Amino acid sequence: MEPFILVNFKTYLESTGIRAVELSRKIEQVSKKTNVKLGVAPQFCDIERVARSVSLPVFSQHLDPVTPGAFTGHVLAASLKEAGAAGTIINHSERMLRLHDIEIVIGKAREAGLMTVVCAGTAALAASAALLEPDMVAIEPPELIGSGRAVSKEKPEIVSDSVAKIRSVNGKVRVLCGAGISSGEDVYAALKLGAEGVLVASGIVKAADPESVLMDFCQAVRRIM
Amino acid sequence: MEPFILVNFKTYLESTGIRAVELSRKIEQVSKKTNVKLGVAPQFCDIERVARSVSLPVFSQHLDPVTPGAFTGHVLAASLKEAGAAGTIINHSERMLRLHDIEIVIGKAREAGLMTVVCAGTAALAASAALLEPDMVAIEPPELIGSGRAVSKEKPEIVSDSVAKIRSVNGKVRVLCGAGISSGEDVYAALKLGAEGVLVASGIVKAADPESVLMDFCQAVRRIM
Amino acid sequence: MEPFILVNFKTYLESTGIRAVELSRKIEQVSKKTNVKLGVAPQFCDIERVARSVSLPVFSQHLDPVTPGAFTGHVLAASLKEAGAAGTIINHSERMLRLHDIEIVIGKAREAGLMTVVCAGTAALAASAALLEPDMVAIEPPELIGSGRAVSKEKPEIVSDSVAKIRSVNGKVRVLCGAGISSGEDVYAALKLGAEGVLVASGIVKAADPESVLMDFCQAVRRIM
Amino acid sequence: MEPFILVNFKTYLESTGIRAVELSRKIEQVSKKTNVKLGVAPQFCDIERVARSVSLPVFSQHLDPVTPGAFTGHVLAASLKEAGAAGTIINHSERMLRLHDIEIVIGKAREAGLMTVVCAGTAALAASAALLEPDMVAIEPPELIGSGRAVSKEKPEIVSDSVAKIRSVNGKVRVLCGAGISSGEDVYAALKLGAEGVLVASGIVKAADPESVLMDFCQAVRRIM
Repeated sequence: MEPFILVNFKTYLESTGIRAVELSRKIEQVSKKTNVKLGVAPQFCDIERVARSVSLPVFSQHLDPVTPGAFTGHVLAASLKEAGAAGTIINHSERMLRLHDIEIVIGKAREAGLMTVVCAGTAALAASAALLEPDMVAIEPPELIGSGRAVSKEKPEIVSDSVAKIRSVNGKVRVLCGAGISSGEDVYAALKLGAEGVLVASGIVKAADPESVLMDFCQAVRRIM
Repeated sequence: MEPFILVNFKTYLESTGIRAVELSRKIEQVSKKTNVKLGVAPQFCDIERVARSVSLPVFSQHLDPVTPGAFTGHVLAASLKEAGAAGTIINHSERMLRLHDIEIVIGKAREAGLMTVVCAGTAALAASAALLEPDMVAIEPPELIGSGRAVSKEKPEIVSDSVAKIRSVNGKVRVLCGAGISSGEDVYAALKLGAEGVLVASGIVKAADPESVLMDFCQAVRRIM
Repeated sequence: MEPFILVNFKTYLESTGIRAVELSRKIEQVSKKTNVKLGVAPQFCDIERVARSVSLPVFSQHLDPVTPGAFTGHVLAASLKEAGAAGTIINHSERMLRLHDIEIVIGKAREAGLMTVVCAGTAALAASAALLEPDMVAIEPPELIGSGRAVSKEKPEIVSDSVAKIRSVNGKVRVLCGAGISSGEDVYAALKLGAEGVLVASGIVKAADPESVLMDFCQAVRRIM
Repeated sequence: MEPFILVNFKTYLESTGIRAVELSRKIEQVSKKTNVKLGVAPQFCDIERVARSVSLPVFSQHLDPVTPGAFTGHVLAASLKEAGAAGTIINHSERMLRLHDIEIVIGKAREAGLMTVVCAGTAALAASAALLEPDMVAIEPPELIGSGRAVSKEKPEIVSDSVAKIRSVNGKVRVLCGAGISSGEDVYAALKLGAEGVLVASGIVKAADPESVLMDFCQAVRRIM
């Protein structure tokens, strides 16, 4: 499976508003140059203008288990879809959901034609999530998120163990890994361990030169492909 | 104080995506024709394109108590501001906050230059909210929301009691009332009871002809002004 | 595996305080007469005196993902254990947990020597829960809870499908089923479908004669054993 | 008003199970010796046996906004009352509630004959809480909780400002203060600033000799009375 790199913009000021659009354009340039599949996950308010501005797949950072109707302040699948989103992150460690709601949200996303990336912090949780049949599962040990210490190098066994556990219950789901990924080496290690992509945030968004770091990521991908 | 009517789009399909823009344009027309101050509160993903399309004040339906940073899936004040929002609803009965977070969110909104409308379901809660010094407080008895039975006619004492309780602790906050408002008569009754505006949702969004219902609302406002 | 019937006392007044003790004594009598394995799950405040009064295994209705320390108002595993609890229900549909916390709570319970029953509303969620290796999983479709319409008769395929899905990922976990169980026939149907016990609440607690209904349950169990 | 000292046992192991009873007995001795009004707030599972063992007023650490019925895993007012509780802490910074639920919980407690202590972290929040008419409000700046640095000495203006703000909206509510209180001097300072009691946790529970620290607290109270 061709690897996928998803850049989570979180609520960093560096990737808010017009800067979300600008960063997405840089990411699109790298994707075109390297022919590596990249995606972006801006904040809700920025989804529409990012989707209008670039041809990358745009993900939401969250989706609520709600239907159209009286749900003030919630994120509706149809709203993401109409804004141009291609998918959504679910259950990120900074926005965790109840087990029950994860199943509902995956269903709502699928009905709306949105891809799903469910995050999980341990191998067992990743396998549990995989049983609910999302499109992708992302392993992210919370203690490494934003640490600059890459899961694929600090805790390689979590990645390989997760891949094994997930594969024993779901042969189709794409496995991403994240947390602390900040160099091409980290990406290369992740793919070697069986991941089929990475979820990255501060490693790109807070980088002095996001474009060159991402270029480094993509060259690591090319070494594998 | 010149009355203010805020239309909450909730997650109704009738007010999602391009239909949020279209409905906002109709609302803008009514505002221009009647010279009554109107505002709209679309879903997060629609704030930016609505704000780009109309000159009405655009409100978010919710704001999270977060700072710029690692808060995946949350709503940041700076993101609302950059999208063109003029303010935000807080603590709607469909998206209630902890007391502690209401104070934080009001502070975050103020710092970002966003107006705040804090919702409350009872007179005592409305006064509690008013002590935290938002720009507006909206009384909405949850049992009447979406009922078609207007708070200003079904439970006028809640409105007058709330106005009195709020005024005893805060002389400046604007008092809105909501829940079940669906005709000019309901609006007139609300203003007569001391409200300085209304919060309305299904009464406009789900109306067969939103423009004509809103025109009826605005004529009621003109009778008072 | 010898079937197990767990009676959830919820927050019914009929099973609060001294009535929790009295009901537990009746349940103990039936267990002794029929030699069927029964357990009770009273409210937190009643666990200690119920555990002191009867020899049945006593379960908590919930456990929080906390450690000893500064967690005012939370339920600590060591506190349940010292009160005499033998185990705990986790993720009941009326007290659902985040996926992440389910894994933590199962671990905390195990360390404290408490058995775990994780509830789930669908077959897929039950299998997800089973992957986290609790002692028992209970299938309870939320729409049938308290309905008087038994899951084992109304939706037998949910029970058999859950048993199959759970068994494909975990060969050891005990599978209970619940929701609407109110007669020996319902219990018999559940066991025939592969369940190894039932979780019951209003069917016993709110019965005019709890003892005789439970006797009926136990006779159904004896027919299978 | 005669000062009141409430000792919150949190989920400390030092105050769990039989040690909750033992600590309560020590606290009762100090209360008898000094004639100062003391109370204890053990964990849910310990309320009944503590209430049976001592004549001190026993508080719960939390109460849920639920009615008798299908609320598995929640804390019911009637359950606390039957276990012998005299009151409950509400909205502790480690177990915060939505504004809406604070009003409901105060009402449920009052109906059940339970006293209420609502916690708040700032002067404005304390006044908001006081408007909902609990029996007591406790000011506890979260940043000082468990710090060993007493609010009454580190941030005396928070205490005096809170007392003033609370008094401007509610003349009857008892004002406690907490966070970091660990000596008689801290208690004396708090009472001098207008507080009518203190809420203390680690300062007593984790003390090498809880009895002697509490004796020091009570002597400070006697200096004022």
